Amino acid sequence: MIGASVADDDLYRFAYHLGKELGKRNVVVINGGRTGIMEAVSRGVREEGGISIGIMPTYDGSDANPYLTIKINTGMNWNRNPIVVASGEVVIAIGGAWGTLSELAYAKILEKKIIGYRTHELEGIIRVQSVEEVLNILREWGIIDR
Amino acid sequence: MIGASVADDDLYRFAYHLGKELGKRNVVVINGGRTGIMEAVSRGVREEGGISIGIMPTYDGSDANPYLTIKINTGMNWNRNPIVVASGEVVIAIGGAWGTLSELAYAKILEKKIIGYRTHELEGIIRVQSVEEVLNILREWGIIDR
Amino acid sequence: MIGASVADDDLYRFAYHLGKELGKRNVVVINGGRTGIMEAVSRGVREEGGISIGIMPTYDGSDANPYLTIKINTGMNWNRNPIVVASGEVVIAIGGAWGTLSELAYAKILEKKIIGYRTHELEGIIRVQSVEEVLNILREWGIIDR
Amino acid sequence: MIGASVADDDLYRFAYHLGKELGKRNVVVINGGRTGIMEAVSRGVREEGGISIGIMPTYDGSDANPYLTIKINTGMNWNRNPIVVASGEVVIAIGGAWGTLSELAYAKILEKKIIGYRTHELEGIIRVQSVEEVLNILREWGIIDR
Repeated sequence: MIGASVADDDLYRFAYHLGKELGKRNVVVINGGRTGIMEAVSRGVREEGGISIGIMPTYDGSDANPYLTIKINTGMNWNRNPIVVASGEVVIAIGGAWGTLSELAYAKILEKKIIGYRTHELEGIIRVQSVEEVLNILREWGIIDR
Repeated sequence: MIGASVADDDLYRFAYHLGKELGKRNVVVINGGRTGIMEAVSRGVREEGGISIGIMPTYDGSDANPYLTIKINTGMNWNRNPIVVASGEVVIAIGGAWGTLSELAYAKILEKKIIGYRTHELEGIIRVQSVEEVLNILREWGIIDR
Repeated sequence: MIGASVADDDLYRFAYHLGKELGKRNVVVINGGRTGIMEAVSRGVREEGGISIGIMPTYDGSDANPYLTIKINTGMNWNRNPIVVASGEVVIAIGGAWGTLSELAYAKILEKKIIGYRTHELEGIIRVQSVEEVLNILREWGIIDR
Repeated sequence: MIGASVADDDLYRFAYHLGKELGKRNVVVINGGRTGIMEAVSRGVREEGGISIGIMPTYDGSDANPYLTIKINTGMNWNRNPIVVASGEVVIAIGGAWGTLSELAYAKILEKKIIGYRTHELEGIIRVQSVEEVLNILREWGIIDR
């Protein structure tokens, strides 16, 4: 799950709600571990007892949001971005600034399937309007409810 | 948990047994995800229903041992070593070749507590002879049975 | 200097010609060290006796084009991309596929000045049509002929 | 060239003197770019008009010593250590604390030739007592005066 560290209400709610749905289904959610979208999704996952893993920019994880289950501390600052993308079976982008764009570019390099909500316009991103749509796609791909 | 990708019987058994004890106690075990010590500890953890996370050298995790619960794919080859160390609350070294030495050096740089069984001789490593001793130390530090 | 590993004639010529102009002026040119744009610019630089540095994906630099003066071997595959960008005083993008997009995103994150020829459309890129235009901008910025 | 960021007089003089000899011979010297041994060798190289490249922990190179010819900015903190080692044809270690140990371990992983002066005791390091000895070995290996 990728997205910006600053999120408006609509993006935050989308990420939080999706986090809850994935948490319920025991999908491990890997993200950048910080604020905004990363916090929203982690919060949703945690409230349902799921696992949310933050790939942290720092060595000590002091920049983590409070909802992560597990912190992977890289000490590599923004150079940790490709690790978030490479670790996911599927990449879901919610909103996004330049960090998210770098991650989407890596998702294309690594030929990942990408689902996007209000994110950058790149070819091959499956664009959705609702959490329900995301779940339908993940179900079709055999990622959830299998 | 760090250690070499090739392990003799004594080292493999030590890592496997320790993995089982940590798995029982729901300690998340982070390791390099490959063979030898990394496989042994992951196998022990998994058999007890615990979580074992492999920090993989590749982008696709194709080099993973079959006992990992979660793969973090870095694509960075041996440059992933400091991430394994930085992510642990405590570093436990079992045996070890040059890769393990690089990790021990990072553990010193990052001022981690280090427990070692039949590993490199560096100042400040708490040396143990048995799995029971490791558990006693972790208990004292408030890592397990807290 | 960033750009794709596959270049059509126009892009190759642009990069080669720009490399020559920079090489003449003793500007150190840092790039990804491989084929396409990276080869073209390195070739131009070298023919004029300048310094072209390749930030290589491999540990042994075996993937280098033959025109580099110096190889920095990272062993980190595509994760070396942000290093190319962070090391430049200015980022010049010529053409570009997904790797270049990841580098442009890092250039924005790191707030670098960006000049682009036939590359991705992102806000804040100064778009040029000729090598002469690039040189004029670099002169104005005090990078060359100072 | 690897070594600690804090150097006593003997180590500083050794690195500085070796830097001068390598600078005279147009050997490109790659190092960690910071203080201590890294500064001493860069200073020697620069005084002879040679090229000294610093592989910097930061994104902006603000932690560089003033004698570097070129800065490669990684933004990866200590995770940049394997890059220093992988980029050298030969690794020369002068003194050294934990950072140097991590680099020596990577030098072993990558099967580099290693020359050491007052550094960690690891098998396979060719130990020297003088700059002249280093030059003799480099001459024998065809690295200088070829």
